Amino acid sequence: MSGLSRDPGGWLEAVLGDAEIRARLGEAAQIADMLRIEAAHAQALGAVGRIAPDLADEAAQAILAAQIDREALARAAAVDGVPVPGLVRQLQAALPERLHPALHGGMTSQDVMDSALMLALGDVTAIFESRLERLQAVLGQLEARFGDRPLMGRTRMQAALPVGVGHRIAGWARPLDHHRAELDRVSRRVLRLQLGGPVGTGDSLGPQAGEISAQMAQGLGLAAPDHAWHTDRAALVAYGAWAAGLSGHLGKIGLDIALMAQQGVDELRLAGGGRSSSMAHKHNPVRAEALVSLGRYSATQLAALHLALGQEQERSGTAWALEWLSLPPLLEAAGAGLSRALGLVEDIEEMGAR
Amino acid sequence: MSGLSRDPGGWLEAVLGDAEIRARLGEAAQIADMLRIEAAHAQALGAVGRIAPDLADEAAQAILAAQIDREALARAAAVDGVPVPGLVRQLQAALPERLHPALHGGMTSQDVMDSALMLALGDVTAIFESRLERLQAVLGQLEARFGDRPLMGRTRMQAALPVGVGHRIAGWARPLDHHRAELDRVSRRVLRLQLGGPVGTGDSLGPQAGEISAQMAQGLGLAAPDHAWHTDRAALVAYGAWAAGLSGHLGKIGLDIALMAQQGVDELRLAGGGRSSSMAHKHNPVRAEALVSLGRYSATQLAALHLALGQEQERSGTAWALEWLSLPPLLEAAGAGLSRALGLVEDIEEMGAR
Amino acid sequence: MSGLSRDPGGWLEAVLGDAEIRARLGEAAQIADMLRIEAAHAQALGAVGRIAPDLADEAAQAILAAQIDREALARAAAVDGVPVPGLVRQLQAALPERLHPALHGGMTSQDVMDSALMLALGDVTAIFESRLERLQAVLGQLEARFGDRPLMGRTRMQAALPVGVGHRIAGWARPLDHHRAELDRVSRRVLRLQLGGPVGTGDSLGPQAGEISAQMAQGLGLAAPDHAWHTDRAALVAYGAWAAGLSGHLGKIGLDIALMAQQGVDELRLAGGGRSSSMAHKHNPVRAEALVSLGRYSATQLAALHLALGQEQERSGTAWALEWLSLPPLLEAAGAGLSRALGLVEDIEEMGAR
Amino acid sequence: MSGLSRDPGGWLEAVLGDAEIRARLGEAAQIADMLRIEAAHAQALGAVGRIAPDLADEAAQAILAAQIDREALARAAAVDGVPVPGLVRQLQAALPERLHPALHGGMTSQDVMDSALMLALGDVTAIFESRLERLQAVLGQLEARFGDRPLMGRTRMQAALPVGVGHRIAGWARPLDHHRAELDRVSRRVLRLQLGGPVGTGDSLGPQAGEISAQMAQGLGLAAPDHAWHTDRAALVAYGAWAAGLSGHLGKIGLDIALMAQQGVDELRLAGGGRSSSMAHKHNPVRAEALVSLGRYSATQLAALHLALGQEQERSGTAWALEWLSLPPLLEAAGAGLSRALGLVEDIEEMGAR
Repeated sequence: MSGLSRDPGGWLEAVLGDAEIRARLGEAAQIADMLRIEAAHAQALGAVGRIAPDLADEAAQAILAAQIDREALARAAAVDGVPVPGLVRQLQAALPERLHPALHGGMTSQDVMDSALMLALGDVTAIFESRLERLQAVLGQLEARFGDRPLMGRTRMQAALPVGVGHRIAGWARPLDHHRAELDRVSRRVLRLQLGGPVGTGDSLGPQAGEISAQMAQGLGLAAPDHAWHTDRAALVAYGAWAAGLSGHLGKIGLDIALMAQQGVDELRLAGGGRSSSMAHKHNPVRAEALVSLGRYSATQLAALHLALGQEQERSGTAWALEWLSLPPLLEAAGAGLSRALGLVEDIEEMGAR
Repeated sequence: MSGLSRDPGGWLEAVLGDAEIRARLGEAAQIADMLRIEAAHAQALGAVGRIAPDLADEAAQAILAAQIDREALARAAAVDGVPVPGLVRQLQAALPERLHPALHGGMTSQDVMDSALMLALGDVTAIFESRLERLQAVLGQLEARFGDRPLMGRTRMQAALPVGVGHRIAGWARPLDHHRAELDRVSRRVLRLQLGGPVGTGDSLGPQAGEISAQMAQGLGLAAPDHAWHTDRAALVAYGAWAAGLSGHLGKIGLDIALMAQQGVDELRLAGGGRSSSMAHKHNPVRAEALVSLGRYSATQLAALHLALGQEQERSGTAWALEWLSLPPLLEAAGAGLSRALGLVEDIEEMGAR
Repeated sequence: MSGLSRDPGGWLEAVLGDAEIRARLGEAAQIADMLRIEAAHAQALGAVGRIAPDLADEAAQAILAAQIDREALARAAAVDGVPVPGLVRQLQAALPERLHPALHGGMTSQDVMDSALMLALGDVTAIFESRLERLQAVLGQLEARFGDRPLMGRTRMQAALPVGVGHRIAGWARPLDHHRAELDRVSRRVLRLQLGGPVGTGDSLGPQAGEISAQMAQGLGLAAPDHAWHTDRAALVAYGAWAAGLSGHLGKIGLDIALMAQQGVDELRLAGGGRSSSMAHKHNPVRAEALVSLGRYSATQLAALHLALGQEQERSGTAWALEWLSLPPLLEAAGAGLSRALGLVEDIEEMGAR
Repeated sequence: MSGLSRDPGGWLEAVLGDAEIRARLGEAAQIADMLRIEAAHAQALGAVGRIAPDLADEAAQAILAAQIDREALARAAAVDGVPVPGLVRQLQAALPERLHPALHGGMTSQDVMDSALMLALGDVTAIFESRLERLQAVLGQLEARFGDRPLMGRTRMQAALPVGVGHRIAGWARPLDHHRAELDRVSRRVLRLQLGGPVGTGDSLGPQAGEISAQMAQGLGLAAPDHAWHTDRAALVAYGAWAAGLSGHLGKIGLDIALMAQQGVDELRLAGGGRSSSMAHKHNPVRAEALVSLGRYSATQLAALHLALGQEQERSGTAWALEWLSLPPLLEAAGAGLSRALGLVEDIEEMGAR
């Protein structure tokens, strides 16, 4: 999916990536999502009477059942810059000609790809929500176990005044309330259909454009947009910024834990820990370190995503591609961070002074 | 203030900076804001009965009237890493000893600096709000003048299908509604007092910490926080991301205009334009270019600001300093972009085909 | 490998990635490279007399022939944070115990991984060199075909003065001489063995550390370092900056071509071009756009790589991981850019006015 | 100059900026440098016989003595996007008409500004060189004082094996050799005249363009370029990357020191240290923290500078402006880091165990 998981299932993914998020955003899932968009479009055309309802249903079934040749898709995309023209050609070849009126008509590549992304983003949101809830729970347990113990507060890397373990944990847990509320907000805002046709006016969909949009949105569980957002990427970028913000906060937790686990400081003890190939006594706080790395990495990926705001005219090939390169890593980093944070907090055996 | 305005009042500020925003965030304004925080703190101590109300008033007046030696402040900050210890020492020297109980007690440097930043951010928000409103108005006028004219829609830098000038303008104007609504939201969330004492527990303020906080917040026109946010920078970072998002969108407007003004394309004509030192016939679309530059610049500054989320323990000197370096340029870029966009749109003499 | 090629062989890789570079840096190749390092280490121990030469040869053969279970490797890396401890355990299990003295002794994980990366980087350098040479050749042919034609020079997106097509092409070609020379320089500097043991002192290798290093380096075709560079990443970061610089320059070429191919400007015509799913007449300059995206993307990835310079103490888990996340995408982007630029320049059918 | 020194001479500059570098790159110095370029150009015209030598000398003297109205310059730059057209108009008004043939003819704004930047960069290079030499010296003294003491080596934030203080110091000092050598190389490459006229062909300078260039370069102590580098910014970007690389390494030193100075670790004791406004016992390692902040900040500014490589056609207003915004902060950060590192190392009172 990203720099995080160079090879699906490989060691780097195990250390820094997230197989579940990667798979949900990967090509196989994306193709399935794009087929769902084409199928919903066919059914919407039937619902508004542009094609016969039976034909629409039949087309939708055939689209969802189509076997897509991924190598051919890649070859076509190398020419076209996007996978949709090749996908539509494969569907045209797979479906009998009488079903072709149900295919893609009035949509543009970006309608299909952006809407497909929204389906993925809906599922990713649910994964994040679930993990955030669990992380809050394990932090609650940590507070229950160690919250009353003394801890030296440290500011600017220097001993300051005693604070108690609970104060440190509150600094980890409280912002998660905010991040959960924000996730709800940013996901509500972004999760809507994209449907504007070649230049975003909806003209290609004819006078029933609004009805088609409403039908498709309902069928897909997305909001219906009041206009195409081909070049208005603010909501998508805000979702990415949410992910980077969460990863940054998880990085704070990781950094605190790595600092507390230092010999000499000894404010925290972890079960397990990374083994060294040369020093048998080492127990490296590798998940804490991963959180720090993922937080910093995400800050830089967000710069790439923000560059995608410079969408010239009615569609920018250059800016859109920057989203493809930066949003998935931001999402995977957030998912990976949540998993690592869960395991890391659960591994805390001692915290503070007894 | 930033890379944008290397020399206050200089040519680079005139091209890419914003003197008004720069001044509001500059050192003189910051010192005045910090004095306001100290004065509000003194009055709050009086209001809750920790010191005599008369003494509190007298101290507040003396604090606000204090003449701060900026060179001495800089020399002290070079040692301390922050200006507050030096500021407090200057105040101690300026105020009679009987007023010293009203000075700073229970606060930490970050309480003063963060709260002072909130005062500045409140004013900056008002400037943004006003300019956004004006920009929407001039775009409305542009739509009234040229909206009905034909325009070739362009996707991926290639002629696509006719769209009309109004469609292009809508792509500029509509996201501004969103950015205004978001500004209201992010500013409401961030504009709150900071008051936590040395390690963020509020213990140094004693049992009346909550009352002191409420009094100070009321006096300063800020919200009262339910806890210190010394290490929880999400709201501040979200404000910066808002600014970067706006600048990115203004960059889209600038890029569109620069592309439309090309010879051969000739879809837009600007009054004025930048003169060349060597080619008398040139009319460079310099404000359009500035919008593009500011949008891209802001994407990279946001990476620096996000790195500030990695706040270890109870206060991070390293991460906090990254905010000082990146938030003001993000704000100045947004302000500069709004000014440039206003002038640029007003300069449009022709748009679309007649 | 990266954001560039989310799914090996998928459509996104076809559009923006580079299968050859991705494969050379991928996990399978990396494991093979790490085995080569372990084998060279075994042979060096034999050469310096630490183990019997026959045993060394036998161990080296067995290491190179070992079948590594990648799933087990990933599981172990999830605990250890690096793949080497798990790899060594697999080798211990695969090799008879009498060969164990030839295994890994005195090395640390970073010795193996960094040295393995150097083997990959050597091959990637050769790929870059070859493509740069070909790109210079096709630009030479382009100059021969169209260099004498007139072209309007454009500055700040406005017509300036006539320059001739040859001047524009020279602005594309000349910097490539520099980038080739720089590639030679930065690769010579970086391509050296890593061998320092657990804390970089080489003590774990005993008094023959220097000889072992020299033997290993010779066997692997790398330079022998005079000290471990565990925390001194300047040469590696410089290689990444070279790649980002090349990608930035290729982005200039892509941007020029996309601008020249605009309707109305009509200074360049491409064969082929990307098809639209909704507009049969479109021929989108998708490879030109890809170059622009890759150039901008690389600028942001370089920020992540530079953050890897902050290597605390004798080894930083956090900073090292940032390299894993950012260097491969930088290399793949440069490789992808070279491929796209080659195809793009070859597709130019007309350039300038006749 | 930058985010580093929002207000010249202010407290933020004292903490994170560098007044000397800021001043050398500031507007007053830049205007003086631009006048030097115009004067050298006048004298070159005299030397090659385009104007009478006496006239050339007189013009050069008059140019260097001209009083530039900075407010008027800023007002003109707001229109033109660059200060040179306004500067030339001020010179035309200041010089008698008979000297006008010696003024600017054949140059373009970028020739003047880029060449002026080279004069500044030459001086900045000398400052860096001098500070690097001093930093190496103080590290040598540190090694002499404490190099033999024991120190626990730490990897991945965990105690590893003993290394000795000298090993840690070597990890700080050795890369500085490299950075000095690199500074010599990158500065030699970049420090050359810019002279290409409006579109970079040199045609506006007539058949003597080469002679004029050679004369100007010699007079200014710069190399003579064999072609204009208006859009070829690789050498400039490489200089910025050098600065970011140095700052990243200084960040490693700062991070090590901050970690060593922690209570509980106690491997290093600093004289002085930052005072707290609320905790009298605190001695914050503020210069160590500044080094960390400057290193991370520089990584992000380098992304902005790399975006400047995307220079479309014969001159990009948008990309060029990104250099103005990002190169000065990178240089100031490097200079600030060197100063802070010098003071910080000198302040080390104890290091390692006795």
